[in-house]
Amino acid sequence: MTEKSYTVTTSSSSKRRKLGRMSDSRNAESDRPDFTSVAQAARDASVALGPLTRTQKDTALLAIADALVERTAEIVTANSRDIARAEANGTSAALIDRLTLTRERIAAIAEATRDVAALPDPVGEVVRGYSLPNGLQVRQLRVPMGVVGMIYEARPNVTVDAAVLALKSGNSALLRGSSSAFDSNTILVEVMQAALASTDVPPAAVSLVPGTSHDSVKELLTARGLVDVIIPRGGAELIQSVIQNATVPVIETGVGNCHVYIDAAADIQTAVEITLNSKVQRPSVCNAAETVLVHREVAAEYLAVAIPALVDAGVTLHADSATRSHRAAVGFGDHIVEVTPSDWAAEFYSLDLAIGVVDSLSDAIGHIREWSTGHTEVIVSDSERAVNQFTAQVDSAAIMVNASSRFTDGAEFGFGAEIGISTQKLHARGPMGLSELTTTKFVVTGDGHVRS
Amino acid sequence: MTEKSYTVTTSSSSKRRKLGRMSDSRNAESDRPDFTSVAQAARDASVALGPLTRTQKDTALLAIADALVERTAEIVTANSRDIARAEANGTSAALIDRLTLTRERIAAIAEATRDVAALPDPVGEVVRGYSLPNGLQVRQLRVPMGVVGMIYEARPNVTVDAAVLALKSGNSALLRGSSSAFDSNTILVEVMQAALASTDVPPAAVSLVPGTSHDSVKELLTARGLVDVIIPRGGAELIQSVIQNATVPVIETGVGNCHVYIDAAADIQTAVEITLNSKVQRPSVCNAAETVLVHREVAAEYLAVAIPALVDAGVTLHADSATRSHRAAVGFGDHIVEVTPSDWAAEFYSLDLAIGVVDSLSDAIGHIREWSTGHTEVIVSDSERAVNQFTAQVDSAAIMVNASSRFTDGAEFGFGAEIGISTQKLHARGPMGLSELTTTKFVVTGDGHVRS
Repeated sequence: MTEKSYTVTTSSSSKRRKLGRMSDSRNAESDRPDFTSVAQAARDASVALGPLTRTQKDTALLAIADALVERTAEIVTANSRDIARAEANGTSAALIDRLTLTRERIAAIAEATRDVAALPDPVGEVVRGYSLPNGLQVRQLRVPMGVVGMIYEARPNVTVDAAVLALKSGNSALLRGSSSAFDSNTILVEVMQAALASTDVPPAAVSLVPGTSHDSVKELLTARGLVDVIIPRGGAELIQSVIQNATVPVIETGVGNCHVYIDAAADIQTAVEITLNSKVQRPSVCNAAETVLVHREVAAEYLAVAIPALVDAGVTLHADSATRSHRAAVGFGDHIVEVTPSDWAAEFYSLDLAIGVVDSLSDAIGHIREWSTGHTEVIVSDSERAVNQFTAQVDSAAIMVNASSRFTDGAEFGFGAEIGISTQKLHARGPMGLSELTTTKFVVTGDGHVRS
Repeated sequence: MTEKSYTVTTSSSSKRRKLGRMSDSRNAESDRPDFTSVAQAARDASVALGPLTRTQKDTALLAIADALVERTAEIVTANSRDIARAEANGTSAALIDRLTLTRERIAAIAEATRDVAALPDPVGEVVRGYSLPNGLQVRQLRVPMGVVGMIYEARPNVTVDAAVLALKSGNSALLRGSSSAFDSNTILVEVMQAALASTDVPPAAVSLVPGTSHDSVKELLTARGLVDVIIPRGGAELIQSVIQNATVPVIETGVGNCHVYIDAAADIQTAVEITLNSKVQRPSVCNAAETVLVHREVAAEYLAVAIPALVDAGVTLHADSATRSHRAAVGFGDHIVEVTPSDWAAEFYSLDLAIGVVDSLSDAIGHIREWSTGHTEVIVSDSERAVNQFTAQVDSAAIMVNASSRFTDGAEFGFGAEIGISTQKLHARGPMGLSELTTTKFVVTGDGHVRS
């Protein structure tokens, strides 16, 4: 424009105008940047970052990995302040363990960053490409989202993990970690930004939401026009709060009440092995099983092997009356309690397992449709017919046929990296790799084509 | 389950329990079904509908098409009540035209329904399929969403259109049209449900949200667990209201402030033809152009041809001072007004066009990034370098290179049917066909596989 008033001088000022915000970019009282200025800087950075080549982005990721190793001492020191505060607050040992960054853990985070650099670049992929009868050439290209907002809980490794996956897919990362990890997250972002300063990726492409108040979360959740997607990582409560309050589109992740169904046509030995692996191999994760349903016809045979094996592995069974009345349950009274409705709904994330006997495959499907969070369900069966009915009628992100629920995982699926496991139906469902952090753009090329 | 209290008797009661709703399924006062019972019936119908074959679904669509033609007289009668009410309320002639259903229009709706039946079924497509090193077979299959909620304005043809597209893709449609079209929408849904009664598709798969109050909209927008996605179709105000109030995921559609950029390397005749076609071929639709930006170097030559041509086509130009000061503008004073900031933001949907001169390609991109709604932008240029920069840096759903903005359209793209044009980045971007009404499910097949 020749009229200066309409010219785009900086997109920062213009975007703020669009949003109807007139605040200064810095809070004069504290001299700390406000949310809008940080988010706008992340947005501006995404404009520069989006078109970079894979080599430019990978160079930046390797610089981050090197910096994390070089500045390990500073990171450990900052982390120790978070730990001291957590200890003073009486935080549980388990949570303090999740919060803790050691030299080894930082080295592992750096190594994971190098692994992401080695992955293919999702940006630029031609998703569809064809010619129309009138000669127009249509290409649908994979492009970055822009700014990805992440809200997550205690583990500070997510700060690096999320930033690295966002950068690799051409996006800025706007991060809001737990206030309990504030010092750790602050130094990690500082280390990453300093590393980026010597690369083609603008440092503001990795930014921390300023402050630790709930207001700052709310600002992130409603920053339409500045933030393109919010991905919450954490417990059910965090995710529900994000869904209730966000106007920015959300990808719901990782809440798993996974079921294992033992069909009448199951091989019993396979059924027991899959049950054990699904429940006890790593009970604290979202793809661990929380409920077993066994068909009445094979219940006696299955329970006779499964109950002792599960109890031996330390599992407490929350069992229906049919299970408890089986001869197999005799003598295990200490390890078998009566199931409650809330047990059917529970994501125990512990060595607890709800267990019940069903009269039919249809009853099992009905139970799963009622109680599942839509993450992963397993069927153990040698009946093609039963498998087909189960896979057609169970409405979850992943169905495992004669395989452990623990396989629902980005690394197991061969994605190389995993942002999370989506349990929603829009945009992405199941394990999400780098492609799921992108959108697409149609480019249509003509030769003066007009519509008649 | 053998304990009846845990058994799934009907998913209706169970889902309501999950949602914490204890209301009766019918409102005793009015004996009209309440929102939850209607939504639950649509959900239950989606469970039966999802696994149907293409033939079963197409048979249902053809039954709907036949019923619409057979019951035309009833539909016209109901529609005339809506029209009489609208006339009594002083509704504009244009809006009354949109509301009106004639014998010819109903025949066209039936014909469009038959066209959808002729399209391929998106459900069951294997999106990805591969074997893992451990022998697990991974397939990602296209499956229905479940229940699609549609909120739309005056045109009652959307009632059939949305229902038919939802059914074809295996989903139930839960419809909330304008209260001004209430009688028309009610009879259309009644005709469709009656037609479905003789097919394998449960009639409740096409349902109208009961009542016309704002509360019923709110119930639809927050029906997580019952409704899988909301698609608003209408003006910017409707769409914003949906975004602000929905907790169910939303696909934003069809708001278009489209730009045509005439580059320094443009062929002027092509530029003028594309400008005219983009603006005047059908000004009332979202893919019509609203702003032209012309590079300073070719402004004189372009404007000398474009201004008389646009004025001759009835266009009013909202021009910046550079445009107005060109010799080409002399003598067109009546048709050229001074551009305002709100003109740069406007979706005129009329024979109005904002027009400005830019100093560079980068300025044009900056202007577009500032003001665009992210729908469609056009570049007219013979410079490969300029085209590449424009397509890389403009962040919109569709970029037209030397082609009219009017080509951003599901039918033009060869999709056969169009649900709408998404201007958001999540799930779908640009014209949406039947596939965009589906999600996916991973089916992983093993042979007793467990994780070690």
